Amino acid sequence: MKEVPVDEAWERKYPERTVLVVSCDSEGKANIITLGWNMPTSSVPPTVAISVGLENHSHRLISEAGEFVLCFPSIEMLDEVMYCGTHSGRDVNKFKETGLTPVRARHVRPPLIAEAVVNMECRIVGQHRTGDHTIFVGEILAAYVSDEERRVLFNLGQDRYEGFPW
Amino acid sequence: MKEVPVDEAWERKYPERTVLVVSCDSEGKANIITLGWNMPTSSVPPTVAISVGLENHSHRLISEAGEFVLCFPSIEMLDEVMYCGTHSGRDVNKFKETGLTPVRARHVRPPLIAEAVVNMECRIVGQHRTGDHTIFVGEILAAYVSDEERRVLFNLGQDRYEGFPW
Repeated sequence: MKEVPVDEAWERKYPERTVLVVSCDSEGKANIITLGWNMPTSSVPPTVAISVGLENHSHRLISEAGEFVLCFPSIEMLDEVMYCGTHSGRDVNKFKETGLTPVRARHVRPPLIAEAVVNMECRIVGQHRTGDHTIFVGEILAAYVSDEERRVLFNLGQDRYEGFPW
Repeated sequence: MKEVPVDEAWERKYPERTVLVVSCDSEGKANIITLGWNMPTSSVPPTVAISVGLENHSHRLISEAGEFVLCFPSIEMLDEVMYCGTHSGRDVNKFKETGLTPVRARHVRPPLIAEAVVNMECRIVGQHRTGDHTIFVGEILAAYVSDEERRVLFNLGQDRYEGFPW
């Protein structure tokens, strides 16, 4: 084996599950961020961990609201996923610009996304600064899957995306 | 969409990167655990987060030593990955039983695994209890990739594993 810069080693991390995280401000205005860094992190209670950059608009929204919705997008949502990953909610209304459909959640204020394959309503039960990101740990209060068969979007690296099952 | 048990929603999380984490006790005896829950969690400094079950032997070792080695196994290591995921280091010496080759690390006491595609030496800079698991956040002190081309093992769900690139 040979020593390499950390970034070069991370090039072997793919496929990576790319998710959307929905949050909202105190007036109920929703925002969507695209995240690559996420994992389950407890079975009992069921929790999920997401890493959010300190500079992101969603970092403040998620911190302040203490809740979020985690969505697994379908491969058909690639354009919307790219849009949400390259624009800031400070400047644009991402639901309006992408045309994604908000659906009222049962336990939290941020909406679900009708087009997603999976939606999870999450309440934050812990957070931990890790450097230039914060890990938010959300307890999963409710989970939903799409009625139709849809393939989940994965990042294969080098700007390639595919839906699983392939 | 329809509401489902959380476990059913998680069935759409695959492919999942399955990693090996090497730790060692105060006498230097190394152990290997198989983990599915892991993610990058900061770029500056470079850190990685792993979720380890409270009951695992490795949970104690990692907590006490404050360091670990994270490995991406190749698809050829499937038998060893399964062995490490179904036996406890309390009962067996996993390096001996699997035949995997330990290689001295530069910055930490747990060894690298010669057969892996990626090895990362990590020092713990934070930890957070999330329920029945703990997130350990490790700063990546050094990273290595294999000299030969090897495909990284991924869990596709339903007891299927494949190497990427497919």
